[in-house]
Amino acid sequence: MKNSSPSFNALLASVPHIASPDQMQRHMSDMSGYEGAMPAVVFRPVSTEQVSAIVKTCVAENRKITIQGGLTGLAGGACADAGDVVISLESMNRVEEIDTIGGVAIVQAGVILENLCHAVQQEDWYFPLDFGSRGSCLIGGNVSTNAGGNKVLRYGTTRDLVLGMEVVLPDGTILNMLNRVIKNNTGLDLKHLFIGTEGRLGIITRLSLRLFPNPQTRATALVALDSFDHVTRMLKEARSALPDLSSFEVMWQSYLVQAALHANKELPFEGSYPIYVLLEIEGADKDTFHDGFHAFLEFLIESEIGRDVIVPQTLEQADSLWQIRDAIGEILRSIRPYVAFDIGIPLKHMPAFIEQVTAVLEKEYPQAINLLFGHLGDGNLHLTTGKLQEKEIFAVEELVYQTASGFGGSISAEHGIGRIKKPFLKYSRSREELDLMSAIKNLINPRDIFNAGRIVD
Amino acid sequence: MKNSSPSFNALLASVPHIASPDQMQRHMSDMSGYEGAMPAVVFRPVSTEQVSAIVKTCVAENRKITIQGGLTGLAGGACADAGDVVISLESMNRVEEIDTIGGVAIVQAGVILENLCHAVQQEDWYFPLDFGSRGSCLIGGNVSTNAGGNKVLRYGTTRDLVLGMEVVLPDGTILNMLNRVIKNNTGLDLKHLFIGTEGRLGIITRLSLRLFPNPQTRATALVALDSFDHVTRMLKEARSALPDLSSFEVMWQSYLVQAALHANKELPFEGSYPIYVLLEIEGADKDTFHDGFHAFLEFLIESEIGRDVIVPQTLEQADSLWQIRDAIGEILRSIRPYVAFDIGIPLKHMPAFIEQVTAVLEKEYPQAINLLFGHLGDGNLHLTTGKLQEKEIFAVEELVYQTASGFGGSISAEHGIGRIKKPFLKYSRSREELDLMSAIKNLINPRDIFNAGRIVD
Ligand SMILES: Cc1cc2nc3c(=O)[nH]c(=O)nc-3n(C[C@H](O)[C@H](O)[C@H](O)COP(=O)(O)OP(=O)(O)OC[C@H]3O[C@@H](n4cnc5c(N)ncnc54)[C@H](O)[C@@H]3O)c2cc1C
Ligand SMILES: Cc1cc2nc3c(=O)[nH]c(=O)nc-3n(C[C@H](O)[C@H](O)[C@H](O)COP(=O)(O)OP(=O)(O)OC[C@H]3O[C@@H](n4cnc5c(N)ncnc54)[C@H](O)[C@@H]3O)c2cc1C
Repeated sequence: MKNSSPSFNALLASVPHIASPDQMQRHMSDMSGYEGAMPAVVFRPVSTEQVSAIVKTCVAENRKITIQGGLTGLAGGACADAGDVVISLESMNRVEEIDTIGGVAIVQAGVILENLCHAVQQEDWYFPLDFGSRGSCLIGGNVSTNAGGNKVLRYGTTRDLVLGMEVVLPDGTILNMLNRVIKNNTGLDLKHLFIGTEGRLGIITRLSLRLFPNPQTRATALVALDSFDHVTRMLKEARSALPDLSSFEVMWQSYLVQAALHANKELPFEGSYPIYVLLEIEGADKDTFHDGFHAFLEFLIESEIGRDVIVPQTLEQADSLWQIRDAIGEILRSIRPYVAFDIGIPLKHMPAFIEQVTAVLEKEYPQAINLLFGHLGDGNLHLTTGKLQEKEIFAVEELVYQTASGFGGSISAEHGIGRIKKPFLKYSRSREELDLMSAIKNLINPRDIFNAGRIVD
Repeated sequence: MKNSSPSFNALLASVPHIASPDQMQRHMSDMSGYEGAMPAVVFRPVSTEQVSAIVKTCVAENRKITIQGGLTGLAGGACADAGDVVISLESMNRVEEIDTIGGVAIVQAGVILENLCHAVQQEDWYFPLDFGSRGSCLIGGNVSTNAGGNKVLRYGTTRDLVLGMEVVLPDGTILNMLNRVIKNNTGLDLKHLFIGTEGRLGIITRLSLRLFPNPQTRATALVALDSFDHVTRMLKEARSALPDLSSFEVMWQSYLVQAALHANKELPFEGSYPIYVLLEIEGADKDTFHDGFHAFLEFLIESEIGRDVIVPQTLEQADSLWQIRDAIGEILRSIRPYVAFDIGIPLKHMPAFIEQVTAVLEKEYPQAINLLFGHLGDGNLHLTTGKLQEKEIFAVEELVYQTASGFGGSISAEHGIGRIKKPFLKYSRSREELDLMSAIKNLINPRDIFNAGRIVD
């Protein structure tokens, strides 16, 4: 076997990097709360060839690599182990091409999500991925975690936005699959090995992404309802009547109250209702756009699916509703230590799941409050429980994941497994699935060079 | 190793099957024109356990298996080799559950597509997969080939409609991944190993599928345009203005003339134009639906993107336009032997590709006619070339695939690789991709028990 990899010293001489503990501090951990350790060096390559060279050298010298994007992940996947070689994609930040005929962007994996969205918008196209960490997460990190967000209902998860990619494998091989066509049935679609697998199988270095027409206008409403059953009826009607539907966010009463408090907002309705839906449509600016939306809201009230509706008259009023929806960060700070769950539950089992799990939580942990909200259009429920005592946390996690599993749910709808949820993966995946996942991991990343200790061994 | 598999004779005693050459005749080949051979037996299992038992016995007795759905495939994947054990899914034809709250169907893999669509519609939901072979293809075959069709623009390919599946692996293991939630980020999403891989890695036995609100109305129009450039501008405007857009089918003039002739229809326009778009929207029945469509068509003419428009006034008139679009079967019968290509080309390279490839074809094969049409919204171009001489066919394929490859195209947007396109796979996938595909094939199906000789070795 020919060993064509540069020595470690040659790498240090040619690839941008940082090695001082002070500067490397911020490369120890992501936003999950998992405590990482000090790496040996943080490489910041500027090209795919540099990434490949680093990997080849690490293989030859038997060193472990931790891959890092914007470090906003919530599963501990980007946290370094002591002495790791870190490869940070942050300097591979070029938008290489925006194809305004086909609606395709070719980018390096280290572009910040928000920058990508702006660059695309300047060409009058739209990249619809959007969530709180948009200003610091990197598109390669989004793909590696298959991030969701506020508009999945309309545009799908990140997986659905990826046409193709370039990947460096754990032996340093560069796999160019920068496909630009939407339909391509030529055998195994290899990109799915790398989407949502959090760096376990390869380093994503470039991407071709699907763009959408740039919506020219938005409309928002907050609807109050009597029960979860009314919410599922509203969801079906909304999907049918509003082809422009982009968000369908549900908040239970106790969440709304806490969120308004922490966001420093008045409660939107005078009365109190069990459950609320924040609805948004986005599309072309034409007369029929707002007419259709108002007709739908009237229908909701007339058919008694909805009890009351607020339609903001200004952009500020609409923003204010979204600020309530997004106040979770502030709430969490006030209930430490907490567990913030991100689970998927089939809609038809959602009421039974909630009843069962909150009954046990209220009985066993009476001092904690349980708040519920979620991207209900996607079956994605956020449940946050706190204050807890540190020693109670594992048992609460076990309880919720086990219950979710009993209802055919997923222990992670969005945030991934990483290190944090690895002990609970068995609640979402069968023995046979775990075996097959490990077998593929062992085929592609046999010596655990990439992201050792995450997801499966 | 414990061998718990039944003997072949025990299988024959317990699993429904046919073994007479007369009855097995129709199980030799699919619709690709590839000539299969006589299998040893055709099993028609009624349960996943029976499928697993057959596989275990074949492993123990070292026999090869060909997997069959509705035998409508166009790549030769379902064609048997002499002496094969055939597993036909056609008797696993139960729609097990339609979840009308979450919009999910749980079905066995042998349900005929059209039957599935009807069953779903009876519950006032919608399964949007649709194409010519709907009356005989099976949903498991659709998933194995990641079929496309007329509504990909709106709903995606079959891949996007699959929430989860149950699969029997080449060692007989049953992998239950009947997930019902839309978002599930718990490690490698294993279902993508089996979607579009044409039975090379597993036998799909059951599926959970995503349903959509049942559209209550449709509107259709045929638009005449001056150039392909006008078509791409129209596509962007249509995607932006018509959230209900479900089909965007393009026909070049020579295709329209041939198709009208073979479908026994008058030419729709008095004048002749270089290119046409058949446009369809489907959605909720409200006043704004047709108003928005007509406003868009007016805009097309006013902005001079479109030259002329036909809006059918009756369902029959609309059907008649679709019959022209769908007359390809009749055309092909008249130009045998032919090659029918199904390629994906990035929109921005489409004009150059067409110019280059038709110039060579017209020069080298002056006696053949070249017809162009396609699901242009998806970058999917159908090119049919005939009459050719049998001995010219391979060279024509080589020419077209090589040219497509030069423009970053795919040699199969819809129909797959199977046996027929295996020699040309290298034009769509790099050496590194083929190696990784083979490695995964060898990991999961090491002894080539399933569908030997298809896609990659
Ligand atoms: C305020 C806030 C809001 C959020 N909201 C949402 C939300 O609504 N929906 C949602 O889904 N998520 C949400 N997240 C979590 C989300 O996963 C991340 O924000 C984002 O997708 C991660 O990107 P990153 O670049 O920061 O990745 P990192 O945290 O750096 O890495 C994440 C994982 O991917 C791996 N990785 C990173 N880059 C690459 C690469 N190029 N190749 C291979 N592997 C790589 C890492 O090793 C790690 O395992 C939120 C996070 C925060 C802090
Ligand atoms: C008139 C006509 C129109 C068509 N139009 C379109 C179109 O618009 N778009 C499009 O994409 N395709 C189209 N096709 C081709 C399309 O691929 C098939 O019609 C359909 O998807 C195949 O389903 P089937 O059940 O007939 O599969 P088969 O032909 O029986 O099998 C196809 C492949 O899948 C494998 N397979 C079948 N079932 C299983 C299973 N349960 N598990 C694992 N492997 C399995 C087989 O081994 C084979 O390799 C058309 C075909 C015809 C004849």
